[in-house]
Amino acid sequence: MIQLSLIGIGTGNPEHLTLQAIRALNAADLVLIPRKGADKADLAGLRRTICAEVLTNPATRLAEFDLPVRAETGDYRGRVDDWHDAIAACWETSIRDGLGTQGRVALLIWGDPSLYDSSLRIAARVARSLPLEVSVVPGITSMQALAAAHAIALNEIGAPFLVTTGRQIRDHGWPPGVDTLVVMLDGACAFQTLDPSGVTIWWGAYVGMAEEVVLSGPLAEAGPRILALRDSERERHGWIMDIYVLKRGL
Amino acid sequence: MIQLSLIGIGTGNPEHLTLQAIRALNAADLVLIPRKGADKADLAGLRRTICAEVLTNPATRLAEFDLPVRAETGDYRGRVDDWHDAIAACWETSIRDGLGTQGRVALLIWGDPSLYDSSLRIAARVARSLPLEVSVVPGITSMQALAAAHAIALNEIGAPFLVTTGRQIRDHGWPPGVDTLVVMLDGACAFQTLDPSGVTIWWGAYVGMAEEVVLSGPLAEAGPRILALRDSERERHGWIMDIYVLKRGL
Ligand SMILES: C[S@@+](CC[C@H](N)C(=O)[O-])C[C@H]1O[C@@H](n2cnc3c(N)ncnc32)[C@H](O)[C@@H]1O
Ligand SMILES: C[S@@+](CC[C@H](N)C(=O)[O-])C[C@H]1O[C@@H](n2cnc3c(N)ncnc32)[C@H](O)[C@@H]1O
Repeated sequence: MIQLSLIGIGTGNPEHLTLQAIRALNAADLVLIPRKGADKADLAGLRRTICAEVLTNPATRLAEFDLPVRAETGDYRGRVDDWHDAIAACWETSIRDGLGTQGRVALLIWGDPSLYDSSLRIAARVARSLPLEVSVVPGITSMQALAAAHAIALNEIGAPFLVTTGRQIRDHGWPPGVDTLVVMLDGACAFQTLDPSGVTIWWGAYVGMAEEVVLSGPLAEAGPRILALRDSERERHGWIMDIYVLKRGL
Repeated sequence: MIQLSLIGIGTGNPEHLTLQAIRALNAADLVLIPRKGADKADLAGLRRTICAEVLTNPATRLAEFDLPVRAETGDYRGRVDDWHDAIAACWETSIRDGLGTQGRVALLIWGDPSLYDSSLRIAARVARSLPLEVSVVPGITSMQALAAAHAIALNEIGAPFLVTTGRQIRDHGWPPGVDTLVVMLDGACAFQTLDPSGVTIWWGAYVGMAEEVVLSGPLAEAGPRILALRDSERERHGWIMDIYVLKRGL
């Protein structure tokens, strides 16, 4: 039996690591580190740094593997499914090479494994051909890192909030029945497609990291400033990851 | 100027603490610990344990204060407002007594300060009469601890999810346009008021703590078992805190 631990590491601040994450990492025989070629956004460097800083167990080995690339064409769900199959095959090969069919393997998951992350689904695929027991160590999410950076609460008192994606906003507009949105996975600034009147935005890129930038204000005037800042930051670093909260009717 | 740090400590597992939280705690001159009389659910004991385990700065002092009680009658918002005013007055007194008007004060916040927590709102009240600079250290939320305990993702691929309260569900039913709900602050098992067909529940109490219990399954058959288990657990421990995810159309 392989024991697979999916360890949330937070969003780029090495101090987001919990004591539980550090313990789980040190309990592993093998830590898998995905690489995305020359892509800086693979954050393999950060994962190596974290391991170097907190690994004290001399028996824990690191194994890097190249992450397969997602197809550019075909329907979205089909492409995602194929990509997850391909990643599962990589995990399985690395695990068999490094451990055989017995031992503890860990993966460092960006943020928290429960939030817009595919590792649990990939693990379920690996479990079809390798006896696998999966456990999860929660980590700080980008949602919390954003809220902390702005010192805001996500919810209004007693009120709900929706966590959603840029694509959902672009395709369906402001969702019904809710006045607070957390928007993730938005490569195209979907807030531009909304009527800005009465809406406030709290935006952040690289939240929790040394590169962190944040900006907030009424959407009508902050929106264009975010577009400009986002472009210049992406240019400067070669990649960007951003997230925002929208509230209306405050 | 008083520097107030609201430090997320996770949901009862002392190992939920992040390295950032430990650093922030040790940077404080004064740590405020709220007490709720004989109520075990005040978790003052856990906060003391955390301080004892991770405080290495001999200059950091602890100050306990009695949390005021929320009025039982009157309209909900009014009672909450009055209660927050009363807590703000306690914080201010403890800070003035312990530090005067200069220094670093820390509060250990259950879970994450951004999620159904009033400390940011209380801090804003204190800031009206005491010069205050507020910063937030994110912590593991009960939402993530629940997802980790069940090894599930909160969202389906590319889909949104709503974070809401038991009262919202009871008063308004299943909200429109979303198939995944995270329900918190539910003292009355609002899932009972929903049509259970096609709905799956993942429930947990004391998630992350030694007392953790979880249960999941189709709502129609898991619902009654949760009601029974919840009653017996509450009886056994004298208090309970629980949270659940509902998904339909899987
Ligand atoms: C594939 S999801 C992974 C989310 C991650 N599991 C979490 O818990 O935050 C990637 C999205 O998360 C958000 N994100 C992750 N890290 C971020 C960061 N440091 N700053 C801003 N946004 C971030 C962005 O919206 C990005 O598109
Ligand atoms: C006032 S809110 C505070 C939430 C907290 N700030 C967080 O980040 O999880 C209290 C609610 O959180 C949930 N909760 C907090 N800790 C929990 C735990 N250890 N187990 C289950 N539910 C918990 C319950 O739904 C409870 O009613």
